Amino acid sequence: MKKRPLILVTNDDGITAPGIRMLIEVMKEIGDVVVVAPNSPQSAMGHAITVNSTLYLEKVTIDKDLDTEYSCSGTPVDCVKIAIDQIIKGKPDICVSGINHGSNSATNVIYSGTMSAAVEAGMNGIPAIGFSLCNFSWNANFDEIRSFVKSITLQALERGMQNGVVLNVNFPKLAFSEIKGIKICRQANATWVEKFDERTNPHGKKYYWLSGTFENHDNGEDTDEWALAHGYVSIVPVQYDLTAYHAIQQLNTWEF
Amino acid sequence: MKKRPLILVTNDDGITAPGIRMLIEVMKEIGDVVVVAPNSPQSAMGHAITVNSTLYLEKVTIDKDLDTEYSCSGTPVDCVKIAIDQIIKGKPDICVSGINHGSNSATNVIYSGTMSAAVEAGMNGIPAIGFSLCNFSWNANFDEIRSFVKSITLQALERGMQNGVVLNVNFPKLAFSEIKGIKICRQANATWVEKFDERTNPHGKKYYWLSGTFENHDNGEDTDEWALAHGYVSIVPVQYDLTAYHAIQQLNTWEF
Repeated sequence: MKKRPLILVTNDDGITAPGIRMLIEVMKEIGDVVVVAPNSPQSAMGHAITVNSTLYLEKVTIDKDLDTEYSCSGTPVDCVKIAIDQIIKGKPDICVSGINHGSNSATNVIYSGTMSAAVEAGMNGIPAIGFSLCNFSWNANFDEIRSFVKSITLQALERGMQNGVVLNVNFPKLAFSEIKGIKICRQANATWVEKFDERTNPHGKKYYWLSGTFENHDNGEDTDEWALAHGYVSIVPVQYDLTAYHAIQQLNTWEF
Repeated sequence: MKKRPLILVTNDDGITAPGIRMLIEVMKEIGDVVVVAPNSPQSAMGHAITVNSTLYLEKVTIDKDLDTEYSCSGTPVDCVKIAIDQIIKGKPDICVSGINHGSNSATNVIYSGTMSAAVEAGMNGIPAIGFSLCNFSWNANFDEIRSFVKSITLQALERGMQNGVVLNVNFPKLAFSEIKGIKICRQANATWVEKFDERTNPHGKKYYWLSGTFENHDNGEDTDEWALAHGYVSIVPVQYDLTAYHAIQQLNTWEF
């Protein structure tokens, strides 16, 4: 590891969220920090990118220690792309995303802007980690997980990451002293069961709010959901080769 | 297979796009069709969902043969969710998405609204296929691939789909007589190299357009890119368990 690695920090809750401010604090202890993060909340944006409209990039000074902090009008994935091309003009040593206010465990990884930013970095050959705390509150206590964030990032820098793999790290909503340790897990097979909330606007027109219940159908003790429910930090290695290799053989028997 | 399967049709180019109109034409020959598709273009929205604003759902009559055709103000994934909860009030026999105006091969699957709609259906236990034609033109000729769309959908209905797997089908921009057949493939390892286009608005403020070059670094002859370049229809089985199982053992050696 270089003495002072270059660290790109982003998130999906927006550049002023307490979660990213804590992540920046920790990363400043490890290396040189560049922040490019959304100028507004971008939760549940998945891997969306901005192709049909323009992007604004604003140099901001939220942390007086940092020379390179930018807010971007786009999605988390846009932030990673524009950071590489316009700000860093190359690749950082690592990209960390978060700390998300709320869980990105199980299938939530697919909807998550935080994790999609990490995946985008990975697709560009940059080691990447998404961090999420299972607490949706704006005032969540990120101090309790501070040392874990640091040690996981240091290990990633020292050990390096396998090609095509990024990390999805989730923290239980517990005090530091209550956290039992870290478990390497698989993604739990859980789903959201939607229940749209139908309302009528002042002009008499119906509209809907997306709402739903998270249902975990997976009893495995090797899942992220199990780890979090039992007081552990979960780390899931995530890949972006989505090929279901095990299905190829059967599909070759289809007759078109 | 039931005599008349219930087929949910959606896309990301919007409900009036020629690609979805052709898909609806083909599906009407196979079963009973429900359309819930975006009321505006939603390309490159990935797996984004609408959580911080409201959704509108409008009953429309574009095809006089259809009783249940709705335009939705949300993303492709929103369309699938609201179709299940509010329109079908249950699960269709299959969900087909597209036909996309433009390729969703290789890593494009991750950005694609078309494929994310199919993945969302899969996550809800619904067999699902995303169809894309490697031609971005609004006036692309979808007639040439009509028979392939039908035969692939019929096979999926007859054979059923493996749990956790949806299909990413891409068609080369060729006349029917030039298409050599269908190949079951893996996702090519290709990336977009970004080059943002910097401009100045009339008020003197800088802004950017996302732009880039698609680079295929994958020489494999078993990839979707290879198949398409050689005149074949590519089918990649896609999974939404993103766990990189092969990386778990190495991560267990990390010392936190």
